[in-house]
Amino acid sequence: MQTIVQKFGGTSLATPQHIQRCAKRAFDAAAAGNRVVVVVSAMGKTTDELITLSRAITPAPRQRELDMLLATGEQVSTALMTMALHSLGHDAMSFAGQHLGIITDPAHTRAKIRYIDVDKLRRELDAGRIVVAAGFQGVTVDGQITTLGRGGSDTTAVALAAALGQSYDSSVTCEIFTDVDGVYTADPRKVAGARKLGRISYEEMLELASLGAGVMHNRAVMCGSNYGVPIHVRHSQKTDEGTMIVQESPEMERVAVVGCALTPDLGRISLRKIPNRPGIQGDIFKIISEAGILVDDIMQTEYGEFADMSFTVCIDDLPDIKAVTQSFLEQLGCGTFDVETGLAKVSVVGVGMRTHTGVAATMFSALGQADIAIANITTSEIKISCLVHAVQGERALNVVHDAFDLHQTPQQQLAQVVTQSTQTQAIGSH
Amino acid sequence: MQTIVQKFGGTSLATPQHIQRCAKRAFDAAAAGNRVVVVVSAMGKTTDELITLSRAITPAPRQRELDMLLATGEQVSTALMTMALHSLGHDAMSFAGQHLGIITDPAHTRAKIRYIDVDKLRRELDAGRIVVAAGFQGVTVDGQITTLGRGGSDTTAVALAAALGQSYDSSVTCEIFTDVDGVYTADPRKVAGARKLGRISYEEMLELASLGAGVMHNRAVMCGSNYGVPIHVRHSQKTDEGTMIVQESPEMERVAVVGCALTPDLGRISLRKIPNRPGIQGDIFKIISEAGILVDDIMQTEYGEFADMSFTVCIDDLPDIKAVTQSFLEQLGCGTFDVETGLAKVSVVGVGMRTHTGVAATMFSALGQADIAIANITTSEIKISCLVHAVQGERALNVVHDAFDLHQTPQQQLAQVVTQSTQTQAIGSH
Repeated sequence: MQTIVQKFGGTSLATPQHIQRCAKRAFDAAAAGNRVVVVVSAMGKTTDELITLSRAITPAPRQRELDMLLATGEQVSTALMTMALHSLGHDAMSFAGQHLGIITDPAHTRAKIRYIDVDKLRRELDAGRIVVAAGFQGVTVDGQITTLGRGGSDTTAVALAAALGQSYDSSVTCEIFTDVDGVYTADPRKVAGARKLGRISYEEMLELASLGAGVMHNRAVMCGSNYGVPIHVRHSQKTDEGTMIVQESPEMERVAVVGCALTPDLGRISLRKIPNRPGIQGDIFKIISEAGILVDDIMQTEYGEFADMSFTVCIDDLPDIKAVTQSFLEQLGCGTFDVETGLAKVSVVGVGMRTHTGVAATMFSALGQADIAIANITTSEIKISCLVHAVQGERALNVVHDAFDLHQTPQQQLAQVVTQSTQTQAIGSH
Repeated sequence: MQTIVQKFGGTSLATPQHIQRCAKRAFDAAAAGNRVVVVVSAMGKTTDELITLSRAITPAPRQRELDMLLATGEQVSTALMTMALHSLGHDAMSFAGQHLGIITDPAHTRAKIRYIDVDKLRRELDAGRIVVAAGFQGVTVDGQITTLGRGGSDTTAVALAAALGQSYDSSVTCEIFTDVDGVYTADPRKVAGARKLGRISYEEMLELASLGAGVMHNRAVMCGSNYGVPIHVRHSQKTDEGTMIVQESPEMERVAVVGCALTPDLGRISLRKIPNRPGIQGDIFKIISEAGILVDDIMQTEYGEFADMSFTVCIDDLPDIKAVTQSFLEQLGCGTFDVETGLAKVSVVGVGMRTHTGVAATMFSALGQADIAIANITTSEIKISCLVHAVQGERALNVVHDAFDLHQTPQQQLAQVVTQSTQTQAIGSH
């Protein structure tokens, strides 16, 4: 008998009929002899509708009240899901945030889970009931309702699985049901030959997610990684296996690249001739971060007493960052800056990069042969990203996908990549 | 400094703009130096919509889950109302059922309040905050969310006022804001000369409410009566005074009748020639009550070893009650029954009836002079009801309203009623 935490997102719960279908999946898992915890998001666009309601009252609601408001969305889903399970003939019990034992810090609207008391859940599971838990929410030690921020339901599911794994059933798994089949080698809407991955490591998933492959919330993947909870990402309306997100294994390293991604709509700010003194980077990025702007990649080159620095941001943030940069340079009394729009970033990801060489060379050559200019390069241990012109973004993604034969299974890829890496070893460690 | 509990119903909270208007009333009351508790219902038709959602899942949801579902409606209102108060510049704090200290029995969907712990409320009020409380809900001693049944928000408001009256501020009052101006001598949509009452006793209000004058929930009036909480029923969008529901005072008895009401759409079941033996009434009404049918008035006449019995029910219940009666008579092996539809009931109410005579005669004579046949008469200590043909219902209501000069103020009525009662004293105590 195994314990499964199943999480259903808002799109999968958009209507009562959707809820009934998801209930059937939980019912089937229980009927197959598993102990089942169901974690639900708010139905469809409920959370957005509630936020719209609050905005009609005030543009800046206090966050405690926003949590009071938003937490109702998942509570509605728990009740309806539980009713659906009852009507299928299985005993079940709904749990809102305050009943679940998920204790968070008091940071309303973006609370972090401090600890989880799974005693109540264990009792319900031992009694043969399906537990239906509200995702996205918790309570502070003094009973205030908190929410975990967008994507928090994934985190609830993985965290409950982690807590149950520690004290109840070490073989627990977490299933994230969503509206996609799993994690792909690339976005299948953009790359015709994109292939669903059977397995991917937590680290690879984290990199892909931060590149915009929005299958799962990063916080949840991180939590799974910390506690070693296997996460199965799968389609809520299909029975096919999806993608397992698991600990990295030696076998995974046999392939250099598991997937690639396109981050569209980037802009680049280039600062020129700023003083090359210690601390100047800290000064500017402190101001940018205080303005609430998320910076993507940063590059710096120096020459004598001066340095040039450039960084990319989402184009939505361009007006803000222009103002911030302008005022920073005025305070500094020197330097100039310019702004480029119409950029995109194509990236390849794989834990195999740690042991394979020539990955960068393969990528750069492929882009070069396709006449795609690279405006910038950034790398991490398991990722290489190239900034390209946005109009060439999708083609660049396809070129890279082809270059690493990602449409082929890992077995098919293997020989290919090994050959390439020996040919291009001279270019660099990537 | 006085404490005021203000309750706003769903119609008054239908949109964010409605909520802002209601918030302004609470804000004004606080700005005038009062301590204010706001009790809110679910917005507009939210509760109905949630019930519709649950019906789409299952026709018979478990009541615990229904409570989990329905309780979200008021929680949404508390958050939005609190945000609206903040944006007006007043400190305020929302309380859902589980935070309020309203402890109920575990009878889900129709829970009764056991006790109220107002400690938290007192602290908030003492800190100068407006408390925004979710109506209609409470928790059991072990933290399960319960609801009080339809109209429960009125009960929450009056019960909170009662609890605060006992331990915090004996001069507390309760304001019920609704979409009518107050309590009228008759439904102003049916009687042109209907007049708003300045004051009415709890008992009169209870009688009028059970006759279908749906201004306030009876349970709430009863609670007000038990704890002597003055209840002010008034319009949420107007500043006019409404109607005060208060303890009966000697002054009230100076007028015999304060109001009249029409209960439309009644049917009558008449049982004929059933055995006149002790216990037979209990037998039949036990079966009817087990079928969930609410019986209105009951009449019985006996002749020798047989009796005839008739009772009225809402016409919606007629198919059910026919089946129940049929099967009862079959078991009994004797008796017949027939069913009449197209009936309505016109009633007059007033605590003054206890001391005034001739009220019944005035009513019967007026109906007789208007050629309206009376099919049945029932009375209570402060009420007289006549069953009439439904097609004559509204005219009967107008005739009775005129007969007691209810369009006139109590001062104007007084001489009139006293004259009538001396003329008709011979007919009976009513």
